[in-house]
Amino acid sequence: MSRIAYVNGRYLPHRSASVHVEDRGYQFSDGVYEVCEVRGGRLVDARRHLDRLDRSLSELRIAAPMGRAALTQVLKEVVARNGVKDGIVYLQVTRGVARRDHAFPAPGTAPSLVVTARRADPAAQERLAEAGVRVICVPENRWPRVDIKTVGLLPNVLAKQQAKEAGAREAWFVDAAGYVTEGSSTNAWIVTTDGRIVTRPAESGILKGITRAVVMEAARALGLVVEERAFTPQEAYGAREAFITAASTVVMPVVEIDGRAVGNAHPGAVALELRQRFHAFAEVT
Amino acid sequence: MSRIAYVNGRYLPHRSASVHVEDRGYQFSDGVYEVCEVRGGRLVDARRHLDRLDRSLSELRIAAPMGRAALTQVLKEVVARNGVKDGIVYLQVTRGVARRDHAFPAPGTAPSLVVTARRADPAAQERLAEAGVRVICVPENRWPRVDIKTVGLLPNVLAKQQAKEAGAREAWFVDAAGYVTEGSSTNAWIVTTDGRIVTRPAESGILKGITRAVVMEAARALGLVVEERAFTPQEAYGAREAFITAASTVVMPVVEIDGRAVGNAHPGAVALELRQRFHAFAEVT
Repeated sequence: MSRIAYVNGRYLPHRSASVHVEDRGYQFSDGVYEVCEVRGGRLVDARRHLDRLDRSLSELRIAAPMGRAALTQVLKEVVARNGVKDGIVYLQVTRGVARRDHAFPAPGTAPSLVVTARRADPAAQERLAEAGVRVICVPENRWPRVDIKTVGLLPNVLAKQQAKEAGAREAWFVDAAGYVTEGSSTNAWIVTTDGRIVTRPAESGILKGITRAVVMEAARALGLVVEERAFTPQEAYGAREAFITAASTVVMPVVEIDGRAVGNAHPGAVALELRQRFHAFAEVT
Repeated sequence: MSRIAYVNGRYLPHRSASVHVEDRGYQFSDGVYEVCEVRGGRLVDARRHLDRLDRSLSELRIAAPMGRAALTQVLKEVVARNGVKDGIVYLQVTRGVARRDHAFPAPGTAPSLVVTARRADPAAQERLAEAGVRVICVPENRWPRVDIKTVGLLPNVLAKQQAKEAGAREAWFVDAAGYVTEGSSTNAWIVTTDGRIVTRPAESGILKGITRAVVMEAARALGLVVEERAFTPQEAYGAREAFITAASTVVMPVVEIDGRAVGNAHPGAVALELRQRFHAFAEVT
Protein backbone atom coordinates (compact mmCIF):
# COMPACT_ATOMS: atom_id res chain seq x y z
CA MET A 1 0.00 0.00 0.00
CA SER A 2 1.59 3.27 -1.10
CA ARG A 3 1.54 6.23 1.25
CA ILE A 4 -1.05 8.98 0.81
CA ALA A 5 -0.94 12.49 2.23
CA TYR A 6 -3.69 15.05 2.53
CA VAL A 7 -2.66 18.51 1.31
CA ASN A 8 -5.12 21.40 1.17
CA GLY A 9 -8.15 19.48 0.04
CA ARG A 10 -6.52 16.68 -1.92
CA TYR A 11 -5.37 13.16 -1.13
CA LEU A 12 -2.05 12.76 -2.94
CA PRO A 13 0.61 10.09 -3.34
CA HIS A 14 3.16 10.82 -0.61
CA ARG A 15 5.99 11.40 -3.10
CA SER A 16 4.11 14.23 -4.79
CA ALA A 17 2.68 15.79 -1.62
CA SER A 18 4.02 19.30 -1.70
CA VAL A 19 3.41 22.84 -0.51
CA HIS A 20 4.28 26.14 -2.14
CA VAL A 21 7.76 27.57 -1.50
CA GLU A 22 6.07 30.70 -0.11
CA ASP A 23 3.99 28.74 2.38
CA ARG A 24 4.66 30.61 5.61
CA GLY A 25 5.42 27.34 7.33
CA TYR A 26 8.46 27.01 5.08
CA GLN A 27 9.77 30.57 5.19
CA PHE A 28 8.76 31.69 8.70
CA SER A 29 7.95 28.54 10.75
CA ASP A 30 4.56 30.23 10.97
CA GLY A 31 2.54 27.13 11.77
CA VAL A 32 1.56 24.55 14.36
CA TYR A 33 1.14 20.80 14.45
CA GLU A 34 -0.20 17.82 16.37
CA VAL A 35 0.72 14.15 16.46
CA CYS A 36 -1.97 11.64 17.43
CA GLU A 37 -1.42 8.01 18.26
CA VAL A 38 -3.29 5.51 16.09
CA ARG A 39 -4.19 2.23 17.77
CA GLY A 40 -6.18 -0.52 16.15
CA GLY A 41 -6.88 1.91 13.31
CA ARG A 42 -8.53 4.42 15.67
CA LEU A 43 -7.43 7.84 16.91
CA VAL A 44 -6.23 8.12 20.50
CA ASP A 45 -7.27 11.30 22.34
CA ALA A 46 -8.09 13.14 19.11
CA ARG A 47 -10.48 15.44 20.93
CA ARG A 48 -7.79 16.67 23.29
CA HIS A 49 -5.24 17.02 20.49
CA LEU A 50 -7.71 19.08 18.47
CA ASP A 51 -8.52 21.19 21.53
CA ARG A 52 -4.81 21.94 21.86
CA LEU A 53 -4.57 22.63 18.12
CA ASP A 54 -7.38 25.18 18.48
CA ARG A 55 -5.50 26.84 21.32
CA SER A 56 -2.22 26.96 19.34
CA LEU A 57 -4.02 28.46 16.33
CA SER A 58 -5.82 30.96 18.50
CA GLU A 59 -2.60 32.08 20.25
CA LEU A 60 -1.08 32.78 16.82
CA ARG A 61 -4.30 34.07 15.27
CA ILE A 62 -4.19 31.51 12.49
CA ALA A 63 -7.64 30.58 11.19
CA ALA A 64 -8.80 26.98 11.58
CA PRO A 65 -8.57 25.30 8.17
CA MET A 66 -11.94 23.57 8.65
CA GLY A 67 -14.39 22.57 11.35
CA ARG A 68 -13.70 19.95 14.00
CA ALA A 69 -15.86 17.23 12.47
CA ALA A 70 -14.39 17.68 9.00
CA LEU A 71 -10.84 17.68 10.36
CA THR A 72 -11.49 14.52 12.36
CA GLN A 73 -12.82 12.96 9.18
CA VAL A 74 -9.65 13.91 7.26
CA LEU A 75 -7.48 12.39 10.00
CA LYS A 76 -9.46 9.15 9.85
CA GLU A 77 -9.39 9.10 6.08
CA VAL A 78 -5.59 9.53 5.97
CA VAL A 79 -5.21 6.78 8.55
CA ALA A 80 -7.48 4.50 6.53
CA ARG A 81 -5.92 5.28 3.14
CA ASN A 82 -2.49 4.48 4.56
CA GLY A 83 -3.71 1.27 6.15
CA VAL A 84 -2.33 2.37 9.51
CA LYS A 85 -3.44 0.05 12.29
CA ASP A 86 -0.83 1.09 14.84
CA GLY A 87 1.17 4.24 14.28
CA ILE A 88 0.67 7.97 14.23
CA VAL A 89 -1.18 10.62 12.30
CA TYR A 90 0.52 14.01 11.88
CA LEU A 91 -1.25 17.24 11.07
CA GLN A 92 0.21 20.65 10.36
CA VAL A 93 -1.57 23.96 9.90
CA THR A 94 0.26 27.06 8.69
CA ARG A 95 -0.76 30.65 8.03
CA GLY A 96 -0.91 29.82 4.33
CA VAL A 97 0.79 31.03 1.17
CA ALA A 98 1.58 34.69 0.63
CA ARG A 99 4.23 36.98 -0.82
CA ARG A 100 7.12 36.89 1.66
CA ASP A 101 6.63 39.59 4.27
CA HIS A 102 7.03 39.07 8.02
CA ALA A 103 3.68 40.60 9.02
CA PHE A 104 0.52 38.53 8.66
CA PRO A 105 -0.82 38.24 5.11
CA ALA A 106 -4.13 39.80 4.04
CA PRO A 107 -7.19 38.65 5.97
CA GLY A 108 -8.83 35.78 4.17
CA THR A 109 -5.53 34.12 3.21
CA ALA A 110 -6.37 30.43 3.48
CA PRO A 111 -4.37 28.47 6.07
CA SER A 112 -2.58 25.37 4.77
CA LEU A 113 -3.41 21.93 6.11
CA VAL A 114 -1.21 18.87 5.67
CA VAL A 115 -1.98 15.46 7.17
CA THR A 116 0.23 12.38 6.96
CA ALA A 117 0.11 9.02 8.70
CA ARG A 118 2.55 6.21 9.16
CA ARG A 119 2.79 2.83 10.76
CA ALA A 120 4.80 2.15 13.87
CA ASP A 121 6.27 -1.16 14.91
CA PRO A 122 4.55 -1.97 18.23
CA ALA A 123 6.84 -4.94 18.88
CA ALA A 124 9.94 -2.76 18.48
CA GLN A 125 8.38 -0.15 20.79
CA GLU A 126 7.75 -2.86 23.39
CA ARG A 127 11.33 -4.08 23.16
CA LEU A 128 12.49 -0.50 23.63
CA ALA A 129 10.27 -0.13 26.69
CA GLU A 130 11.55 -3.39 28.13
CA ALA A 131 15.14 -2.18 27.79
CA GLY A 132 14.48 1.44 28.73
CA VAL A 133 16.11 4.46 27.14
CA ARG A 134 18.94 6.86 27.91
CA VAL A 135 18.55 10.61 28.33
CA ILE A 136 21.03 13.47 28.41
CA CYS A 137 20.49 16.98 29.78
CA VAL A 138 21.12 20.09 27.67
CA PRO A 139 20.67 23.80 28.39
CA GLU A 140 17.20 25.16 27.62
CA ASN A 141 17.51 27.46 24.63
CA ARG A 142 14.03 27.71 23.18
CA TRP A 143 11.80 30.76 23.10
CA PRO A 144 9.42 31.20 26.08
CA ARG A 145 6.26 30.29 24.12
CA VAL A 146 6.82 26.53 24.12
CA ASP A 147 3.20 26.25 25.29
CA ILE A 148 2.31 26.76 21.61
CA LYS A 149 3.04 23.64 19.55
CA THR A 150 4.78 25.41 16.66
CA VAL A 151 6.89 23.94 13.88
CA GLY A 152 9.75 26.18 15.04
CA LEU A 153 11.56 23.06 16.24
CA LEU A 154 15.18 23.73 15.33
CA PRO A 155 16.37 23.86 18.98
CA ASN A 156 14.57 20.54 19.54
CA VAL A 157 16.21 19.07 16.43
CA LEU A 158 19.67 20.09 17.65
CA ALA A 159 19.00 18.71 21.14
CA LYS A 160 17.69 15.41 19.78
CA GLN A 161 20.69 15.06 17.50
CA GLN A 162 23.03 15.77 20.43
CA ALA A 163 21.26 13.01 22.37
CA LYS A 164 21.55 10.61 19.47
CA GLU A 165 25.27 11.28 19.12
CA ALA A 166 25.66 10.64 22.86
CA GLY A 167 23.95 7.25 22.44
CA ALA A 168 20.76 8.53 24.07
CA ARG A 169 17.14 8.60 22.94
CA GLU A 170 16.11 11.96 24.31
CA ALA A 171 17.50 15.26 25.57
CA TRP A 172 15.96 17.02 28.54
CA PHE A 173 16.19 20.79 28.50
CA VAL A 174 17.36 22.35 31.78
CA ASP A 175 16.33 25.96 32.45
CA ALA A 176 18.53 28.77 33.79
CA ALA A 177 17.39 27.99 37.35
CA GLY A 178 18.67 24.42 36.99
CA TYR A 179 15.33 22.65 36.56
CA VAL A 180 14.34 20.21 33.85
CA THR A 181 11.66 21.67 31.59
CA GLU A 182 10.87 18.84 29.17
CA GLY A 183 12.38 16.62 26.50
CA SER A 184 12.94 17.68 22.91
CA SER A 185 9.78 15.79 21.90
CA THR A 186 8.47 14.36 25.20
CA ASN A 187 7.49 15.37 28.73
CA ALA A 188 9.86 14.39 31.55
CA TRP A 189 8.95 12.50 34.74
CA ILE A 190 10.58 10.95 37.77
CA VAL A 191 9.37 8.69 40.58
CA THR A 192 10.88 9.64 43.93
CA THR A 193 12.40 7.13 46.33
CA ASP A 194 9.17 7.30 48.33
CA GLY A 195 7.07 6.57 45.28
CA ARG A 196 5.65 9.94 44.33
CA ILE A 197 5.40 10.74 40.62
CA VAL A 198 6.83 14.16 39.77
CA THR A 199 6.47 16.21 36.60
CA ARG A 200 6.82 19.90 35.90
CA PRO A 201 3.66 22.04 36.07
CA ALA A 202 2.45 23.17 32.67
CA GLU A 203 2.26 26.83 33.71
CA SER A 204 5.63 27.66 32.18
CA GLY A 205 8.52 26.14 30.30
CA ILE A 206 6.72 23.19 28.75
CA LEU A 207 4.05 22.15 26.34
CA LYS A 208 0.94 20.84 28.06
CA GLY A 209 1.25 17.26 26.86
CA ILE A 210 -1.90 15.32 26.07
CA THR A 211 -0.23 12.03 27.01
CA ARG A 212 1.05 13.81 30.14
CA ALA A 213 -2.51 14.71 31.15
CA VAL A 214 -3.80 11.17 30.59
CA VAL A 215 -0.85 9.64 32.46
CA MET A 216 -1.64 11.92 35.40
CA GLU A 217 -5.25 10.75 35.40
CA ALA A 218 -4.18 7.15 35.09
CA ALA A 219 -1.66 7.46 37.92
CA ARG A 220 -4.20 9.02 40.27
CA ALA A 221 -6.81 6.41 39.36
CA LEU A 222 -4.24 3.74 40.24
CA GLY A 223 -3.83 5.32 43.67
CA LEU A 224 -0.45 6.90 42.97
CA VAL A 225 0.52 10.34 44.19
CA VAL A 226 1.32 12.86 41.45
CA GLU A 227 3.21 16.03 42.32
CA GLU A 228 3.34 18.80 39.76
CA ARG A 229 6.62 20.53 40.53
CA ALA A 230 9.91 21.13 38.79
CA PHE A 231 12.85 18.79 39.47
CA THR A 232 16.57 19.08 38.81
CA PRO A 233 18.79 16.63 36.93
CA GLN A 234 20.45 15.91 40.31
CA GLU A 235 17.12 14.83 41.81
CA ALA A 236 16.48 12.72 38.71
CA TYR A 237 19.87 10.98 39.02
CA GLY A 238 18.85 9.82 42.49
CA ALA A 239 15.24 9.00 41.64
CA ARG A 240 13.79 5.51 41.88
CA GLU A 241 12.52 5.74 38.30
CA ALA A 242 12.30 8.14 35.41
CA PHE A 243 10.26 8.09 32.24
CA ILE A 244 9.17 10.17 29.28
CA THR A 245 5.77 10.53 27.64
CA ALA A 246 4.53 11.49 24.20
CA ALA A 247 1.73 10.45 21.86
CA SER A 248 4.16 8.50 19.68
CA THR A 249 5.89 6.60 22.51
CA VAL A 250 3.20 6.67 25.25
CA VAL A 251 5.17 5.97 28.46
CA MET A 252 8.82 5.09 27.91
CA PRO A 253 11.03 4.13 30.89
CA VAL A 254 14.34 5.99 31.29
CA VAL A 255 17.17 3.91 32.73
CA GLU A 256 20.08 6.31 32.44
CA ILE A 257 20.45 10.10 32.69
CA ASP A 258 23.74 11.78 31.76
CA GLY A 259 25.49 8.43 32.03
CA ARG A 260 24.17 7.73 35.55
CA ALA A 261 21.96 4.71 36.13
CA VAL A 262 18.48 5.57 37.39
CA GLY A 263 17.25 3.24 40.16
CA ASN A 264 18.49 -0.26 39.43
CA ALA A 265 19.21 0.64 35.79
CA HIS A 266 16.11 -1.25 34.65
CA PRO A 267 12.68 0.08 33.65
CA GLY A 268 10.72 0.95 36.78
CA ALA A 269 7.54 -0.73 37.95
CA VAL A 270 5.52 2.50 37.98
CA ALA A 271 6.54 3.42 34.42
CA LEU A 272 5.74 -0.05 33.16
CA GLU A 273 2.38 -0.13 34.90
CA LEU A 274 1.45 3.28 33.51
CA ARG A 275 2.54 2.14 30.06
CA GLN A 276 0.42 -0.96 30.31
CA ARG A 277 -2.65 0.76 31.71
CA PHE A 278 -2.46 3.95 29.64
CA HIS A 279 -5.01 3.10 26.99
CA ALA A 280 -7.68 2.29 29.52
CA PHE A 281 -7.67 6.01 30.33
CA ALA A 282 -7.27 7.40 26.83
CA GLU A 283 -10.21 8.34 24.67
CA VAL A 284 -10.50 6.44 21.40
CA THR A 285 -12.34 7.83 18.39
CA MET B 1 6.94 38.63 -17.36
CA SER B 2 5.74 35.79 -15.14
CA ARG B 3 7.70 34.96 -12.01
CA ILE B 4 10.12 32.06 -11.98
CA ALA B 5 11.54 30.27 -8.94
CA TYR B 6 14.49 27.92 -8.68
CA VAL B 7 13.71 24.75 -6.72
CA ASN B 8 16.23 21.94 -6.36
CA GLY B 9 17.70 22.08 -9.83
CA ARG B 10 14.73 23.36 -11.78
CA TYR B 11 13.47 26.77 -12.86
CA LEU B 12 9.71 26.66 -12.36
CA PRO B 13 6.78 29.03 -12.79
CA HIS B 14 6.31 30.67 -9.40
CA ARG B 15 2.79 29.29 -8.93
CA SER B 16 4.01 25.70 -9.20
CA ALA B 17 7.21 26.16 -7.19
CA SER B 18 6.80 23.70 -4.36
CA VAL B 19 8.69 21.59 -1.84
CA HIS B 20 7.78 18.28 -0.28
CA VAL B 21 5.59 18.31 2.85
CA GLU B 22 8.38 16.41 4.63
CA ASP B 23 11.00 18.99 3.74
CA ARG B 24 12.61 19.67 7.12
CA GLY B 25 12.23 23.39 6.53
CA TYR B 26 8.46 22.90 6.68
CA GLN B 27 8.20 20.52 9.62
CA PHE B 28 11.17 21.60 11.80
CA SER B 29 12.28 25.08 10.60
CA ASP B 30 15.52 23.22 9.92
CA GLY B 31 16.95 25.64 7.40
CA VAL B 32 18.59 28.99 6.80
CA TYR B 33 18.20 31.84 4.33
CA GLU B 34 19.69 35.01 2.90
CA VAL B 35 18.23 38.06 1.20
CA CYS B 36 20.43 39.99 -1.22
CA GLU B 37 19.66 43.38 -2.67
CA VAL B 38 19.50 43.58 -6.48
CA ARG B 39 20.46 46.92 -7.99
CA GLY B 40 20.62 47.61 -11.68
CA GLY B 41 20.17 43.87 -12.21
CA ARG B 42 23.30 43.06 -10.20
CA LEU B 43 23.80 41.44 -6.80
CA VAL B 44 24.82 43.67 -3.91
CA ASP B 45 27.33 42.16 -1.47
CA ALA B 46 26.63 38.61 -2.66
CA ARG B 47 30.05 37.47 -1.50
CA ARG B 48 29.39 38.54 2.08
CA HIS B 49 25.87 37.09 2.05
CA LEU B 50 27.21 33.76 0.80
CA ASP B 51 29.97 33.85 3.42
CA ARG B 52 27.30 34.25 6.08
CA LEU B 53 25.22 31.50 4.48
CA ASP B 54 28.23 29.19 4.71
CA ARG B 55 28.59 30.05 8.39
CA SER B 56 24.87 29.43 9.10
CA LEU B 57 25.01 26.06 7.30
CA SER B 58 28.17 25.11 9.11
CA GLU B 59 26.74 25.99 12.54
CA LEU B 60 23.79 23.67 11.82
CA ARG B 61 25.86 21.06 9.97
CA ILE B 62 23.71 21.35 6.85
CA ALA B 63 25.64 20.53 3.68
CA ALA B 64 26.04 23.28 1.08
CA PRO B 65 23.65 22.53 -1.80
CA MET B 66 26.29 23.45 -4.40
CA GLY B 67 29.55 25.34 -4.76
CA ARG B 68 29.86 29.10 -4.46
CA ALA B 69 30.24 29.79 -8.18
CA ALA B 70 27.24 27.63 -9.11
CA LEU B 71 25.09 29.20 -6.42
CA THR B 72 26.03 32.70 -7.53
CA GLN B 73 25.07 31.67 -11.06
CA VAL B 74 21.66 30.45 -9.87
CA LEU B 75 21.05 33.72 -8.03
CA LYS B 76 21.91 35.69 -11.17
CA GLU B 77 19.79 33.44 -13.35
CA VAL B 78 16.74 33.84 -11.10
CA VAL B 79 17.25 37.61 -11.08
CA ALA B 80 17.52 37.63 -14.88
CA ARG B 81 14.59 35.30 -15.51
CA ASN B 82 12.39 37.49 -13.32
CA GLY B 83 13.57 40.65 -15.02
CA VAL B 84 14.50 42.15 -11.67
CA LYS B 85 16.41 45.40 -12.09
CA ASP B 86 15.89 46.70 -8.57
CA GLY B 87 14.62 44.37 -5.88
CA ILE B 88 15.77 41.39 -3.90
CA VAL B 89 16.80 37.81 -4.39
CA TYR B 90 15.89 35.32 -1.64
CA LEU B 91 17.57 31.99 -1.09
CA GLN B 92 16.72 29.25 1.38
CA VAL B 93 18.61 26.07 2.17
CA THR B 94 17.11 23.35 4.35
CA ARG B 95 18.35 20.00 5.61
CA GLY B 96 16.29 18.31 2.89
CA VAL B 97 13.46 15.83 2.72
CA ALA B 98 13.28 12.87 5.08
CA ARG B 99 10.81 10.80 7.08
CA ARG B 100 9.78 12.99 10.01
CA ASP B 101 12.15 12.41 12.92
CA HIS B 102 13.75 15.18 14.97
CA ALA B 103 17.34 13.93 14.67
CA PHE B 104 19.29 14.63 11.48
CA PRO B 105 18.39 12.39 8.54
CA ALA B 106 20.84 9.87 7.09
CA PRO B 107 24.14 11.29 5.85
CA GLY B 108 23.88 12.02 2.16
CA THR B 109 20.34 13.40 2.37
CA ALA B 110 20.40 16.22 -0.18
CA PRO B 111 19.77 19.70 1.20
CA SER B 112 16.95 21.65 -0.47
CA LEU B 113 17.64 24.92 -2.26
CA VAL B 114 14.97 27.44 -3.19
CA VAL B 115 15.69 30.80 -4.83
CA THR B 116 13.13 33.49 -5.62
CA ALA B 117 13.46 37.10 -6.74
CA ARG B 118 11.13 40.03 -6.89
CA ARG B 119 11.10 43.65 -7.89
CA ALA B 120 11.01 46.49 -5.43
CA ASP B 121 9.68 49.96 -6.07
CA PRO B 122 12.71 52.24 -5.56
CA ALA B 123 10.58 55.37 -5.78
CA ALA B 124 8.29 54.13 -3.00
CA GLN B 125 11.35 53.23 -0.91
CA GLU B 126 12.71 56.74 -1.41
CA ARG B 127 9.42 58.29 -0.37
CA LEU B 128 9.47 56.10 2.75
CA ALA B 129 13.02 57.21 3.55
CA GLU B 130 12.07 60.86 3.07
CA ALA B 131 9.21 60.47 5.55
CA GLY B 132 11.02 58.15 7.96
CA VAL B 133 9.45 55.21 9.77
CA ARG B 134 8.06 54.43 13.21
CA VAL B 135 9.39 51.77 15.55
CA ILE B 136 8.00 50.13 18.69
CA CYS B 137 9.93 48.18 21.32
CA VAL B 138 8.93 44.65 22.35
CA PRO B 139 10.46 42.16 24.79
CA GLU B 140 13.16 39.92 23.29
CA ASN B 141 11.77 36.39 23.14
CA ARG B 142 13.89 34.60 20.55
CA TRP B 143 16.30 31.76 21.17
CA PRO B 144 19.93 32.74 21.87
CA ARG B 145 21.26 31.57 18.48
CA VAL B 146 20.01 34.57 16.50
CA ASP B 147 23.53 34.74 15.04
CA ILE B 148 22.37 31.91 12.74
CA LYS B 149 20.01 33.18 10.04
CA THR B 150 17.40 30.44 10.39
CA VAL B 151 13.86 30.29 9.03
CA GLY B 152 12.63 29.89 12.62
CA LEU B 153 11.14 33.39 12.38
CA LEU B 154 7.84 33.08 14.22
CA PRO B 155 8.87 35.46 17.05
CA ASN B 156 9.94 37.96 14.38
CA VAL B 157 6.62 37.52 12.57
CA LEU B 158 4.68 38.22 15.77
CA ALA B 159 6.83 41.26 16.59
CA LYS B 160 6.47 42.68 13.07
CA GLN B 161 2.72 42.17 13.17
CA GLN B 162 2.54 43.92 16.55
CA ALA B 163 4.46 46.84 15.05
CA LYS B 164 2.15 46.97 12.05
CA GLU B 165 -0.93 47.02 14.27
CA ALA B 166 0.64 49.89 16.25
CA GLY B 167 1.11 51.84 13.01
CA ALA B 168 4.86 51.20 13.02
CA ARG B 169 7.20 49.71 10.43
CA GLU B 170 9.49 47.77 12.72
CA ALA B 171 9.72 46.29 16.23
CA TRP B 172 12.96 46.45 18.19
CA PHE B 173 13.56 43.59 20.58
CA VAL B 174 14.69 44.65 24.07
CA ASP B 175 16.64 42.10 26.10
CA ALA B 176 16.16 41.24 29.78
CA ALA B 177 18.86 43.76 30.74
CA GLY B 178 16.88 46.53 29.04
CA TYR B 179 19.00 46.92 25.90
CA VAL B 180 17.83 46.91 22.31
CA THR B 181 19.09 43.85 20.45
CA GLU B 182 17.83 44.38 16.90
CA GLY B 183 14.70 44.76 14.82
CA SER B 184 12.51 41.87 13.69
CA SER B 185 14.14 42.04 10.26
CA THR B 186 16.69 44.86 10.57
CA ASN B 187 19.61 46.06 12.69
CA ALA B 188 19.01 49.02 15.02
CA TRP B 189 21.09 52.22 15.21
CA ILE B 190 21.07 55.59 16.89
CA VAL B 191 23.09 58.79 16.45
CA THR B 192 23.88 60.43 19.80
CA THR B 193 23.41 64.13 20.46
CA ASP B 194 27.17 64.57 19.98
CA GLY B 195 27.06 62.83 16.62
CA ARG B 196 28.42 59.35 17.38
CA ILE B 197 26.79 56.42 15.60
CA VAL B 198 25.88 53.60 17.97
CA THR B 199 24.89 50.02 17.20
CA ARG B 200 24.99 46.83 19.25
CA PRO B 201 28.11 44.66 18.94
CA ALA B 202 27.49 41.45 17.01
CA GLU B 203 28.99 39.27 19.75
CA SER B 204 25.58 38.40 21.20
CA GLY B 205 21.90 39.01 20.76
CA ILE B 206 21.90 39.94 17.07
CA LEU B 207 22.56 38.69 13.59
CA LYS B 208 25.75 40.08 12.11
CA GLY B 209 24.09 42.16 9.40
CA ILE B 210 25.83 42.50 6.05
CA THR B 211 24.28 45.93 5.49
CA ARG B 212 25.29 46.75 9.08
CA ALA B 213 28.95 45.96 8.28
CA VAL B 214 28.95 48.03 5.09
CA VAL B 215 27.24 50.96 6.83
CA MET B 216 29.95 50.84 9.50
CA GLU B 217 32.65 50.98 6.83
CA ALA B 218 30.84 53.78 5.02
CA ALA B 219 30.39 55.80 8.22
CA ARG B 220 34.05 55.50 9.14
CA ALA B 221 35.14 56.40 5.61
CA LEU B 222 32.97 59.51 5.87
CA GLY B 223 34.83 60.48 9.04
CA LEU B 224 32.02 59.57 11.43
CA VAL B 225 32.62 57.88 14.78
CA VAL B 226 31.00 54.45 15.16
CA GLU B 227 30.61 52.96 18.63
CA GLU B 228 29.68 49.30 18.91
CA ARG B 229 27.80 49.15 22.19
CA ALA B 230 24.28 48.32 23.33
CA PHE B 231 21.78 51.12 23.90
CA THR B 232 18.44 51.28 25.70
CA PRO B 233 15.10 52.47 24.32
CA GLN B 234 15.43 55.43 26.73
CA GLU B 235 18.73 56.47 25.13
CA ALA B 236 17.13 56.05 21.70
CA TYR B 237 14.17 58.28 22.66
CA GLY B 238 16.65 61.07 23.39
CA ALA B 239 18.97 60.43 20.45
CA ARG B 240 19.54 62.93 17.66
CA GLU B 241 18.69 60.31 15.05
CA ALA B 242 17.79 56.67 14.73
CA PHE B 243 17.74 54.33 11.77
CA ILE B 244 17.45 50.71 10.74
CA THR B 245 19.43 48.73 8.19
CA ALA B 246 18.76 45.60 6.10
CA ALA B 247 19.57 44.39 2.61
CA SER B 248 16.01 45.05 1.47
CA THR B 249 15.72 48.59 2.88
CA VAL B 250 19.41 49.66 3.03
CA VAL B 251 19.40 52.58 5.53
CA MET B 252 15.94 53.68 6.65
CA PRO B 253 15.54 56.69 8.99
CA VAL B 254 13.46 56.21 12.14
CA VAL B 255 11.48 59.26 13.24
CA GLU B 256 9.47 57.88 16.12
CA ILE B 257 10.08 55.20 18.77
CA ASP B 258 7.26 54.05 21.05
CA GLY B 259 5.29 57.14 20.10
CA ARG B 260 8.11 59.54 21.00
CA ALA B 261 9.61 61.73 18.28
CA VAL B 262 13.30 61.11 17.66
CA GLY B 263 15.31 64.32 17.18
CA ASN B 264 13.18 66.81 15.27
CA ALA B 265 10.81 64.04 14.10
CA HIS B 266 12.32 64.15 10.62
CA PRO B 267 14.86 61.81 8.99
CA GLY B 268 18.32 62.65 10.26
CA ALA B 269 21.19 63.97 8.20
CA VAL B 270 23.53 61.10 9.10
CA ALA B 271 20.98 58.43 8.16
CA LEU B 272 20.21 60.15 4.87
CA GLU B 273 23.87 60.57 4.01
CA LEU B 274 24.60 56.92 4.79
CA ARG B 275 21.62 55.90 2.69
CA GLN B 276 22.82 58.00 -0.21
CA ARG B 277 26.44 56.88 -0.01
CA PHE B 278 25.83 53.22 0.86
CA HIS B 279 26.28 51.72 -2.59
CA ALA B 280 29.67 53.33 -3.06
CA PHE B 281 30.87 50.99 -0.32
CA ALA B 282 28.94 47.86 -1.27
CA GLU B 283 30.36 45.19 -3.53
CA VAL B 284 28.43 44.61 -6.73
CA THR B 285 28.59 41.31 -8.61
